[in-house]
Amino acid sequence: MAITLEQAMAVLAAGEKRAAEINVPSVIAVVDDGGNLKAQHRMDNASLAAIEVSLSKAYTSLATNSSTAALAEQCQPGQPLYGLQTTHKGRIVIFGGGVPLRMNGKLVGAVGSSGGSVEEDVIVAEAAVAAFTND
Amino acid sequence: MAITLEQAMAVLAAGEKRAAEINVPSVIAVVDDGGNLKAQHRMDNASLAAIEVSLSKAYTSLATNSSTAALAEQCQPGQPLYGLQTTHKGRIVIFGGGVPLRMNGKLVGAVGSSGGSVEEDVIVAEAAVAAFTND
Amino acid sequence: MAITLEQAMAVLAAGEKRAAEINVPSVIAVVDDGGNLKAQHRMDNASLAAIEVSLSKAYTSLATNSSTAALAEQCQPGQPLYGLQTTHKGRIVIFGGGVPLRMNGKLVGAVGSSGGSVEEDVIVAEAAVAAFTND
Amino acid sequence: MAITLEQAMAVLAAGEKRAAEINVPSVIAVVDDGGNLKAQHRMDNASLAAIEVSLSKAYTSLATNSSTAALAEQCQPGQPLYGLQTTHKGRIVIFGGGVPLRMNGKLVGAVGSSGGSVEEDVIVAEAAVAAFTND
Repeated sequence: MAITLEQAMAVLAAGEKRAAEINVPSVIAVVDDGGNLKAQHRMDNASLAAIEVSLSKAYTSLATNSSTAALAEQCQPGQPLYGLQTTHKGRIVIFGGGVPLRMNGKLVGAVGSSGGSVEEDVIVAEAAVAAFTND
Repeated sequence: MAITLEQAMAVLAAGEKRAAEINVPSVIAVVDDGGNLKAQHRMDNASLAAIEVSLSKAYTSLATNSSTAALAEQCQPGQPLYGLQTTHKGRIVIFGGGVPLRMNGKLVGAVGSSGGSVEEDVIVAEAAVAAFTND
Repeated sequence: MAITLEQAMAVLAAGEKRAAEINVPSVIAVVDDGGNLKAQHRMDNASLAAIEVSLSKAYTSLATNSSTAALAEQCQPGQPLYGLQTTHKGRIVIFGGGVPLRMNGKLVGAVGSSGGSVEEDVIVAEAAVAAFTND
Repeated sequence: MAITLEQAMAVLAAGEKRAAEINVPSVIAVVDDGGNLKAQHRMDNASLAAIEVSLSKAYTSLATNSSTAALAEQCQPGQPLYGLQTTHKGRIVIFGGGVPLRMNGKLVGAVGSSGGSVEEDVIVAEAAVAAFTND
C-alpha cells in the first residue's frame, strides 16, 4: 500500500491548483511511509526557503504522525515537547503546512507546503491531501 | 530566462518515459541556474540512495557547468581535479547522470538521474535534457 | 538581470562607508538571486562571528524575500514562524541586518551585514542596499 | 602585521585582472593568518562550485603553509598524506590554485582561485599574490 508516484503527482497538482487560486507560489513535497521524498515541485516565484521547509514539514508530519500545526503549541517554551525542534539536525518544523497522508486509517506518507503565511500553507497542504484521500 | 516548473515537469516526464522503457526505476531531479531544486520525482521501486544522488548530480552539473560523466575522469587519482569529490560536504558526485540544461548556449539549470547503472543513468538524464533543448 | 560583481562591490563600498562613519567594523555579504555568494568583505577589526552571520543574513533575506528584521518578530515563541530558525542547518538568521536587493520590484539578491548591534547592522545594510536601488 | 581589507582588495583586483586577460571567470578568496575570510569576489559568469573551492583552497594553503599544488602529489593514494583530503569536513583542496601570502617571510594569509582549469587557477592565484608581495 505504498504511495505511488502517480498518486504523489496528483497530490502535488491539487495543492498547486489551490496555491494558484490563492496566489501563493509554493513548494510542495510528498514523502512516503519511510519519510523519504517521493516528489517535490517548486512553483515559479516560490521562495527558496520553501524548498527545505516544505520537505521538512512533510518529514516532520510523517515522523510524528501528526500535522505540523499540532506541534506548534506543544513545542513552545514551557510546553511538553519544547526542544523537539532542535533535534534531527534541523529537519523538524513546528508550524503548520505539514499534513499526514492516510489510507484506511493507516499512515502512508505526508505532504508539506511552504511559500505563504502559515495559514496559507495549511490551506494548500490540506487541498493537496484531499486529492489523496478522495482517491 | 529561468526554467519554469512546467518545463521542469516536461524534463522529468521525458526522463521517466525513457527510464520505464529500459526498466530502470529512477529518481530524477531538476535544479535551476542557482543550483536550487525545481522538481524531483522518485519513480516507484527506485532506490532510496537515488534521492540524494540524483539531486547532487544535478547540483554538481550546474555548479561545474559540465556533465558529471566528464568529471569522472578528471577526479581519478593522479588526474587534475582529484579531491574535488571531498569538497562541498558531500554534494559533489563524480560519475555520470548529471547533465546541464542550456538555453541558447546559456546554463539555465541541470538534470540528475540515479537508480540504475551509471550508463543507464546517463541514458535517462540525456533523454530528460533532450526534452528541454527541443523546447 | 543578474547582479554583477561591479554592482555588488558598489553595494559593499556604500555599506563600508556607512560602517566607518558610525565606527562599526563590519562584515558585509552580497548574494545573488540563487542565494549564492557574489562578494563578501571583512573590514579591519570586525569580529570573526560576523563572517558567517553576515552571509547567513544575506541568504536568509534572499530565501525568505524579506528583511531579517521582519523575521525577528515572527519567529519569537508563540508567533507564527517560531521554529524557522532551527531549519536549514543553522543558515537562518532571525535578527536585523539582512535586506533584499530588488530591481524593478524583482528580487535579485540580498545584503547581510554583521559586526555591530542589530540596530547598527540594519543601518549599514540599508546604506549598502541604497547604493543598489539608486543604480 | 595582519592583512588589511585594502590589501586584500588589491590582491583580488590583481587576480581578477589576470583572470579577465585569460578569459577565465573566477572566484577569488583571501583569508588572513587565522584562516578566516577577509574578502571574496565571484566574477560574472564564474561557476558556483568555484565559490566553495576558492575559499577552501585559500584555507588549505594557509592551514598547511604551502600551495595547494604542492599537496596534489602528497595526497595521492600511496603517498604520505593520502587521506588528508577527507579531514576537515571537506575544507581541504588538494589541487592547485591556493597560494600563501607572506610578508618578510612570515605567513600572513592565503589566496585561493577557482573557475578555470587547475593551470589557469594557478596563474590567477599567483598574479593575485604578486600584488601583495610587491606591496
